[in-house]
Amino acid sequence: MQKVITFGETMIRLSPPDNNRLEQTGSFDVHVGGSESNVAVAIKRLGLDTSFVTRLTDNPLGRMVRNKVREHGVDVSSIVWTEEDRVGTYYVEYGANPRPSAVIYDRKDSAISKIERGTVDWKEVFAGGTLFHTSGITPALSSSARRVTEEAMQKAKKQGLKVSVDLNYRSKLWSQEEARECMTGLMEFTDILVTSEEDTERVFGISGESYEEVAETLAERFDFEAVAITLRDNISMRRNDWTAIAYKDGNFFDDMTYELELVDRVGGGDSFTAGFLYGYLTGGPDKGIKYGNATSAIKQTNPGDLNWCTLEEVKNLAKGGGRVRISR
Amino acid sequence: MQKVITFGETMIRLSPPDNNRLEQTGSFDVHVGGSESNVAVAIKRLGLDTSFVTRLTDNPLGRMVRNKVREHGVDVSSIVWTEEDRVGTYYVEYGANPRPSAVIYDRKDSAISKIERGTVDWKEVFAGGTLFHTSGITPALSSSARRVTEEAMQKAKKQGLKVSVDLNYRSKLWSQEEARECMTGLMEFTDILVTSEEDTERVFGISGESYEEVAETLAERFDFEAVAITLRDNISMRRNDWTAIAYKDGNFFDDMTYELELVDRVGGGDSFTAGFLYGYLTGGPDKGIKYGNATSAIKQTNPGDLNWCTLEEVKNLAKGGGRVRISR
Amino acid sequence: MQKVITFGETMIRLSPPDNNRLEQTGSFDVHVGGSESNVAVAIKRLGLDTSFVTRLTDNPLGRMVRNKVREHGVDVSSIVWTEEDRVGTYYVEYGANPRPSAVIYDRKDSAISKIERGTVDWKEVFAGGTLFHTSGITPALSSSARRVTEEAMQKAKKQGLKVSVDLNYRSKLWSQEEARECMTGLMEFTDILVTSEEDTERVFGISGESYEEVAETLAERFDFEAVAITLRDNISMRRNDWTAIAYKDGNFFDDMTYELELVDRVGGGDSFTAGFLYGYLTGGPDKGIKYGNATSAIKQTNPGDLNWCTLEEVKNLAKGGGRVRISR
Amino acid sequence: MQKVITFGETMIRLSPPDNNRLEQTGSFDVHVGGSESNVAVAIKRLGLDTSFVTRLTDNPLGRMVRNKVREHGVDVSSIVWTEEDRVGTYYVEYGANPRPSAVIYDRKDSAISKIERGTVDWKEVFAGGTLFHTSGITPALSSSARRVTEEAMQKAKKQGLKVSVDLNYRSKLWSQEEARECMTGLMEFTDILVTSEEDTERVFGISGESYEEVAETLAERFDFEAVAITLRDNISMRRNDWTAIAYKDGNFFDDMTYELELVDRVGGGDSFTAGFLYGYLTGGPDKGIKYGNATSAIKQTNPGDLNWCTLEEVKNLAKGGGRVRISR
Amino acid sequence: MQKVITFGETMIRLSPPDNNRLEQTGSFDVHVGGSESNVAVAIKRLGLDTSFVTRLTDNPLGRMVRNKVREHGVDVSSIVWTEEDRVGTYYVEYGANPRPSAVIYDRKDSAISKIERGTVDWKEVFAGGTLFHTSGITPALSSSARRVTEEAMQKAKKQGLKVSVDLNYRSKLWSQEEARECMTGLMEFTDILVTSEEDTERVFGISGESYEEVAETLAERFDFEAVAITLRDNISMRRNDWTAIAYKDGNFFDDMTYELELVDRVGGGDSFTAGFLYGYLTGGPDKGIKYGNATSAIKQTNPGDLNWCTLEEVKNLAKGGGRVRISR
Amino acid sequence: MQKVITFGETMIRLSPPDNNRLEQTGSFDVHVGGSESNVAVAIKRLGLDTSFVTRLTDNPLGRMVRNKVREHGVDVSSIVWTEEDRVGTYYVEYGANPRPSAVIYDRKDSAISKIERGTVDWKEVFAGGTLFHTSGITPALSSSARRVTEEAMQKAKKQGLKVSVDLNYRSKLWSQEEARECMTGLMEFTDILVTSEEDTERVFGISGESYEEVAETLAERFDFEAVAITLRDNISMRRNDWTAIAYKDGNFFDDMTYELELVDRVGGGDSFTAGFLYGYLTGGPDKGIKYGNATSAIKQTNPGDLNWCTLEEVKNLAKGGGRVRISR
Repeated sequence: MQKVITFGETMIRLSPPDNNRLEQTGSFDVHVGGSESNVAVAIKRLGLDTSFVTRLTDNPLGRMVRNKVREHGVDVSSIVWTEEDRVGTYYVEYGANPRPSAVIYDRKDSAISKIERGTVDWKEVFAGGTLFHTSGITPALSSSARRVTEEAMQKAKKQGLKVSVDLNYRSKLWSQEEARECMTGLMEFTDILVTSEEDTERVFGISGESYEEVAETLAERFDFEAVAITLRDNISMRRNDWTAIAYKDGNFFDDMTYELELVDRVGGGDSFTAGFLYGYLTGGPDKGIKYGNATSAIKQTNPGDLNWCTLEEVKNLAKGGGRVRISR
Repeated sequence: MQKVITFGETMIRLSPPDNNRLEQTGSFDVHVGGSESNVAVAIKRLGLDTSFVTRLTDNPLGRMVRNKVREHGVDVSSIVWTEEDRVGTYYVEYGANPRPSAVIYDRKDSAISKIERGTVDWKEVFAGGTLFHTSGITPALSSSARRVTEEAMQKAKKQGLKVSVDLNYRSKLWSQEEARECMTGLMEFTDILVTSEEDTERVFGISGESYEEVAETLAERFDFEAVAITLRDNISMRRNDWTAIAYKDGNFFDDMTYELELVDRVGGGDSFTAGFLYGYLTGGPDKGIKYGNATSAIKQTNPGDLNWCTLEEVKNLAKGGGRVRISR
Repeated sequence: MQKVITFGETMIRLSPPDNNRLEQTGSFDVHVGGSESNVAVAIKRLGLDTSFVTRLTDNPLGRMVRNKVREHGVDVSSIVWTEEDRVGTYYVEYGANPRPSAVIYDRKDSAISKIERGTVDWKEVFAGGTLFHTSGITPALSSSARRVTEEAMQKAKKQGLKVSVDLNYRSKLWSQEEARECMTGLMEFTDILVTSEEDTERVFGISGESYEEVAETLAERFDFEAVAITLRDNISMRRNDWTAIAYKDGNFFDDMTYELELVDRVGGGDSFTAGFLYGYLTGGPDKGIKYGNATSAIKQTNPGDLNWCTLEEVKNLAKGGGRVRISR
Repeated sequence: MQKVITFGETMIRLSPPDNNRLEQTGSFDVHVGGSESNVAVAIKRLGLDTSFVTRLTDNPLGRMVRNKVREHGVDVSSIVWTEEDRVGTYYVEYGANPRPSAVIYDRKDSAISKIERGTVDWKEVFAGGTLFHTSGITPALSSSARRVTEEAMQKAKKQGLKVSVDLNYRSKLWSQEEARECMTGLMEFTDILVTSEEDTERVFGISGESYEEVAETLAERFDFEAVAITLRDNISMRRNDWTAIAYKDGNFFDDMTYELELVDRVGGGDSFTAGFLYGYLTGGPDKGIKYGNATSAIKQTNPGDLNWCTLEEVKNLAKGGGRVRISR
Repeated sequence: MQKVITFGETMIRLSPPDNNRLEQTGSFDVHVGGSESNVAVAIKRLGLDTSFVTRLTDNPLGRMVRNKVREHGVDVSSIVWTEEDRVGTYYVEYGANPRPSAVIYDRKDSAISKIERGTVDWKEVFAGGTLFHTSGITPALSSSARRVTEEAMQKAKKQGLKVSVDLNYRSKLWSQEEARECMTGLMEFTDILVTSEEDTERVFGISGESYEEVAETLAERFDFEAVAITLRDNISMRRNDWTAIAYKDGNFFDDMTYELELVDRVGGGDSFTAGFLYGYLTGGPDKGIKYGNATSAIKQTNPGDLNWCTLEEVKNLAKGGGRVRISR
Repeated sequence: MQKVITFGETMIRLSPPDNNRLEQTGSFDVHVGGSESNVAVAIKRLGLDTSFVTRLTDNPLGRMVRNKVREHGVDVSSIVWTEEDRVGTYYVEYGANPRPSAVIYDRKDSAISKIERGTVDWKEVFAGGTLFHTSGITPALSSSARRVTEEAMQKAKKQGLKVSVDLNYRSKLWSQEEARECMTGLMEFTDILVTSEEDTERVFGISGESYEEVAETLAERFDFEAVAITLRDNISMRRNDWTAIAYKDGNFFDDMTYELELVDRVGGGDSFTAGFLYGYLTGGPDKGIKYGNATSAIKQTNPGDLNWCTLEEVKNLAKGGGRVRISR
């Protein structure tokens, strides 16, 4: 079976229930989330093997992060454990028109930001692997995390894995200049890029008259095997339209637009990446776009970063069909 | 006072809160629900006497089913109790676009599926009754349940009660062929049929160019006193349009279309039936359609199968009026 | 710093969670709310000092009312405490189309309804104050509350404070005739009136071809310094449009219309008043209208009567901007 | 079947979850409770028919009171409904050593306090009845409630029912002098008295060297058919010892002492009364004491005033047996 | 690393929160539990590899069972999946003195009860395994489950694994005679027996003057390698004393008695088995008894069947120490 | 009125509900807590004015800390706000015998640990003040926090305030050697020391044959005006005994021992300090010990660090009285 390895930070995620604002809440719902483990979980649910690599503090919070990823069948045996440092946390406040949702990160000095080159035995991690995935968040965590990201991408390429990257620009972690300098370097090892028009503009200064033009420019400049661009239209806080396009070898691939009744948009991009990679690896870019969109659409209807879809649900949705109803 | 007797299965209903998916939930909200007790509860709330007949296991779950129906004033003194068998359960997962809601039934070998002819003293049950109601779910539960359904309908007719049936086809309980064979037989004892276009097609193979044509065809083929057809338009998982039409003696009766902000659609059809029967028995088909739609619309805005409306609310809504606002 | 003093009743507010109906709920979410303390809280959050005057029974419920207002920094040192009487309560049932939200008041014989002239040392309360605010609810509570409202308004004028009034007609407290007689008298002491077209019609019998005409008529008849009229369009129970206009010295001031995804509409008008008074006092009627609308719009997206906004959020929203999204 | 009729006030009961104090809570658990409906519910669960008479405001709160009593099968058809007045509420704060539990009543001017002689058709209510029960709370609610209590007791006697009274002195409702004057009069119509040593002392000024002496003195002074005295030993807030004795015709009846792990002590006395009356009516004073204690002990282990026991549980417990364990 | 394989049924477990009785609850806390997966989870947490074998219906409930076991790192790759049958459920009602806890099973016709010989590839399952564990519940589920239990035990012995059995008599599943006949046969393949004095008496009719005598008799009659007997003293529903003894080769091993403040006793025996097997396999019977008791004691302080202990916690507790306090 | 100023760190506190372990929880209850604000809140509730000084990040978490302290009437106008750094958090896991409660701190690099000398205008803060209080936690946070603690104590002495210190040794923040070196220096400015025997031994290496001897040794070595030593006996996780003694001018003061049914022991020591200081300042050491113990005992019966007592409750408890019961 094909196997996807992802690398990044996963945090404890705290969100007030019932549309309460952060400042007023008397309780938090607890989830775990992080771009790369979100991807690993969703790909595993669709049917490929996945392994998630990170560095975690060995306390109940760190163990919870591992547990919640392992619950879905992701291989967590390559996680690096430490008695030091801390587990990052973040707070999600759901919005409602006209108040936007908000995220507060409290992730500084987390265990993964202190990871060092040579800590992970990448050779063993990548054995039998098909693809290595990470995002632009990981190298932004710290200079040592950046060095390890580079190390991982290099070794993945060397061991014959494809490498995919979600550009995922986070202004709270680094400046556009820092991101550009670092990510431009990492594109050398990248085969597949998943991004949004906005992040492309902010990180690479690339824009265009159309999504297609942006995708093509990216693919040409960095010699990518494939590029996917996600398109989210924020109708309101509870209603978004979602679709994406892909570009490969001069061809464009698109799909229907999903009208989403949002339950939790966080992790929606990661589920797209997961569905896209699953479809791409098992059928090519057209399947990738269709499965990416369907996987993302389903995710955005359940609380938490993680996707609880089944392959059958994704298949049915990707095939389309009429208006939704109850199944009984 | 007029009295309506209903007969069928009521189950413990478990649903995850806060749009959680079934597989991810850490708790279940507990309700009870079943098509025929849903009808009995709503008719009682509107003002007629009702009695509900079923067979239940005498344990806390069975007693909860009885209690929650009795809480609304339904007469539960004719319920058959047993130390054997089990209380059926079902799981409701609320959807959000584009993910549909889902229902998982775990009702096999429930106490009512083991009911036998001769167990219920129908003569006593029907004494003073106006109308007997059941649905296509009850005979689908088991062959003995089918025999008791037939027994009840026959005796009801014999004792001079009207008989109404909600066609309610459940593909998880029997095939279309089984349903057709059985339900066709039962139509002989049926005065009033409530159904949807889709169920009519699946069970009787009857379709038409319009709802009206379907209603007329049904009424003629089975010589019904009246037919009502409900029309639900699934705009999205949180937004449905709802209306219904009735046919009687060559005349059609329709109503405004309600734009529903769905809280819980399960039981919406049963509340229509209740409102329709209440209106029909106290005023005729026109009142039936108007009260049926209003009763159903209100139900779909509260959690659980059961309706917590008042007669005054239904009256006010059926009369129409402008856009809704807060009352204070 | 400018200081706003408000006077009125604050109650314990009980609302069923998760769209449950009042009659079916197994728990209540607890908030505190009252028009005038809602205003005091929101103005304080925007940056002016505020003091809230009321009369409360010294038990855990009365202390909760004080605490929840004090939590936001409102000065509660002028509250009058008693061992007698009771703390008013009210129940809020959230609606969903086509079922309207409903409020049940249980406020009779509350401590503030027994307040007597001479109890509050208004001279001290108003020392250093800029504006005194109350609403049409306060004098409707009892004849003694009416006398104290009059006393307060007179003394405020005498001490050089501006006086603002939210007309806030409550049909459950008094008839239109009683309201007209009383409020007409109180307008003599009023500089700024906040109201809706509907309340203006019901209390003063004033209507017009347009909101502007109504505002102008009011200002002229009662010689107001400024008038603000709020305009809520009830698209559905979960979707409202909101805006307002102001009139001052022959000029009209308006603003964009907010498309609200309602979490809790109760207190929305009070937050408008707070934002309007804040903007008016710190910049004039144009700023008043823009801040009033933005403050109100944000409030309607969180549970409870109270607003948890920040000045920065209100500023950003009032400045406008594109479609909302997540901030991270 | 024997039938017991009870008469009194039932209120909405609000209690903070998880040992939160009233002043700090963000939610309330909702129950209904009142001494006489607590008795009616528990007797019905044990197997006799019961009817509960009260006066309620016809709003969601009043309907909830009726529903929650009806849920257990109590006949609520004699409740008097009004559009006026209010439904009483009370707040229960659970204690933990050394902090006592606390109850705040907000019951003034409730619907039942406004009940008038002649409102209830006692003749119909008592038809076929075995015993009428009320408590010292009902006449303490208001002078008209006192008159109706007297009316009911007189008519019950006249129609041949036994009358039982739980002395239940509430210092927040009336003084010891008022209670003495009123209750002494009502003892004329009383056959069976349930009380505690403490209430006997406060209301009748009767004390003694032993519980037995007190019981005997009571029985002699008022010529009772039977007297029961409950004995609660407050080891701590979570641990109480409970037993009771009865006196009849010169004989004493006692029972083991239950070591209770308290979940909710409120309603424990009412469940004793219910079990005692059930046992007394179906077997005599010895059975009464044993069933009273067992019924009370079970009640004190579940949240809310109401008892959810079964006759089988009470029987088993009353028979005694070794240390408790899990049943599976 | 040593590996333990367990085989049995795991169910969805539903329990009312806050000491509510089953009949009164409005929600259920959701856990998964089953004797053999409880053992597998706890042994894995202590540090050995474990694999759990069962048969599950492929729906959200079956997947939840698998997820919750996998969350702890148990290998679930040998679970047999089916589209048929159902996932068993059970209901746990927590008691409080004098009301015992209660369990209601609704497990009939679950997927594992329909398992057939030849379905599981035991050869592959047992490859590299150290010990196979099951309990007396598994063969009691159905005759086919009994045949597969026998098959598994035979094959385990053949492949050189030790076999341990927890006698675990369940009167709701079979009679003492059925249990005796079946379990006596299975003892032929059993090396290690974990049981209680009560189950030994009920299943094998073996009793004695002391625990030691019972253990010795068992070991001799069935030629066991080792026997462990657990001793629970039900002081009250919230307070139990717990200890155990072991017998091996003529020697007895005992330990301190733990005074437990029970949060959830269900699964306490399974955690003893896990700790005992872990200690026995890594150090012998003395370590087994000490780790068994400590593992069990910790488990009984958290909700749910599953243990969330760490090896470090168990070690520290097994070493003893003074009175507990807070660690900070 | 006397005024007490306290200085230290307050954190967001997260605890799993219902005895769940940290690793298994799906939600957190949210409180705020910190030794010095706990003291300020409880003293304010008893009736003295209090002001709390800290440094907080201006985000929803920092504002929540301020709000929850302000809710009780503590003056928060001297809090230093920053856009930088973070708000500390900590996690509380409630234990049950034999599993101890556990606290995980995640407070590194919080805003207060970055506070610098000269930031707080102590002169203004201390104006009109009676006593300044801090604990051994504050100087342990960072070297700059240590310098500011020293600065504050010096200035307090200079402005004529008494200074009290709770020794509060936290091994997770610094070593015993670091604590000894720092705290010995700070004792120069200390008038009143509150501590436990254990902390005295760890920080100052002072022990004795009795509590009295330890208190006397402390007072003499550091020339304290008064010393209080708290004595907690950990009977079990849910049952503690609590008392304390004081020493002043050669005299000892003691009190009854409270048998606590623990709801939440965290903050119990701080409430003792608050009650002791309140009693000491308003009546002397004897009142101090009695009010300290009563205030602490009440606190340990409600969730969260903060005390919700009233002066009346503390008075009643300090006066003693028989066994507890319900008040109604």
